[in-house]
Amino acid sequence: MTEPLDVAGLQRRLTEFAAARAWQPYHTPKNLSSALSVEASELLEIFQWLTPEESARVMDDDGTAARVRDEVADVLAYLLQFCEVLGIDPLAALDAKIDRNERRFPAPE
Amino acid sequence: MTEPLDVAGLQRRLTEFAAARAWQPYHTPKNLSSALSVEASELLEIFQWLTPEESARVMDDDGTAARVRDEVADVLAYLLQFCEVLGIDPLAALDAKIDRNERRFPAPE
Amino acid sequence: MTEPLDVAGLQRRLTEFAAARAWQPYHTPKNLSSALSVEASELLEIFQWLTPEESARVMDDDGTAARVRDEVADVLAYLLQFCEVLGIDPLAALDAKIDRNERRFPAPE
Amino acid sequence: MTEPLDVAGLQRRLTEFAAARAWQPYHTPKNLSSALSVEASELLEIFQWLTPEESARVMDDDGTAARVRDEVADVLAYLLQFCEVLGIDPLAALDAKIDRNERRFPAPE
Repeated sequence: MTEPLDVAGLQRRLTEFAAARAWQPYHTPKNLSSALSVEASELLEIFQWLTPEESARVMDDDGTAARVRDEVADVLAYLLQFCEVLGIDPLAALDAKIDRNERRFPAPE
Repeated sequence: MTEPLDVAGLQRRLTEFAAARAWQPYHTPKNLSSALSVEASELLEIFQWLTPEESARVMDDDGTAARVRDEVADVLAYLLQFCEVLGIDPLAALDAKIDRNERRFPAPE
Repeated sequence: MTEPLDVAGLQRRLTEFAAARAWQPYHTPKNLSSALSVEASELLEIFQWLTPEESARVMDDDGTAARVRDEVADVLAYLLQFCEVLGIDPLAALDAKIDRNERRFPAPE
Repeated sequence: MTEPLDVAGLQRRLTEFAAARAWQPYHTPKNLSSALSVEASELLEIFQWLTPEESARVMDDDGTAARVRDEVADVLAYLLQFCEVLGIDPLAALDAKIDRNERRFPAPE
């Protein structure tokens, strides 16, 4: 595990993980976008019956905190694999989007 | 735009963007997990009627490619903002999850 | 429009609508479950930034009320088409589920 | 259980079920739309790695068929409860939507 902890390093680990298990045929962009959406819903499920105030305190309970971190990891894993198979740089995509949003929604003075 | 293009720099830009528009009261973990799920579905929508083969070629069309990158950016934006408000390191969460998955699904020899 | 306004009549209209436009090849159970999930997210999108109290008043505004009804219709349309292609009776499925839940979560005396 | 098996009867059973357990405070439109979206994703999860052909055969396996029926029931349950708290008639909403779609997407001759 001497890979650096950055997006490119994690994408490499995810690619090797899937290749070692021969999972690539399942990893079409269509399937990965479904899996990403399913994992985002599993994160939402933790919050669905909570009040806004309760939702702000989910990390106070160790079990819930672990569950939240686990679902965040799953969402990021499928997002990075989706980007990998389509040759998208997610950080550059977000950087460009923030640029566009700064023009679209000018901040009040 | 002299921020480095890494996760921490993008989180900083997103935080400043929301603060300048006084959007923080809306950014409860509950609301951000909803928004993340909604954006993941908007990405899925691009693929919902495509065959697996068509889904592998979405980046061939410039308009569709731009739409895919835009939805990827939205998913990542809400994931990073969710992690920011709850103090979660998304890269560390994914790194730990891959470690766990390597033990849970051993690769065939 | 002399079809009775019940689930079977609506399923018939939806089937004829799709057949007249030769859309059936797209209507695999996989694709219909994606479309159902996408429409459910479009309904959620209306509520994502609202407080619980604001969410209870969405029907007070005519434009929002129309949008909510429209998304409800889309969710129900894909649910009924999904059930149609797989031969599932959605009302019987729900009736059986309520029976199971009454045994699983006994009401307090 | 002599309620008729129609949408109104099922809505009545769901309302009594929630009332007997004092769950109404949780059943804001915002929370119910989240729960609906989460259940739609649980249905999608069954299909996420399947080919279109495999997805057409999910009812051949008794265990998978039961799981599909169970998720259909959950989606319908939250859709009906959402409509109940907001005073929406889901069948009328869908009927009106099909009317609009027939004008919007005229069938080829």
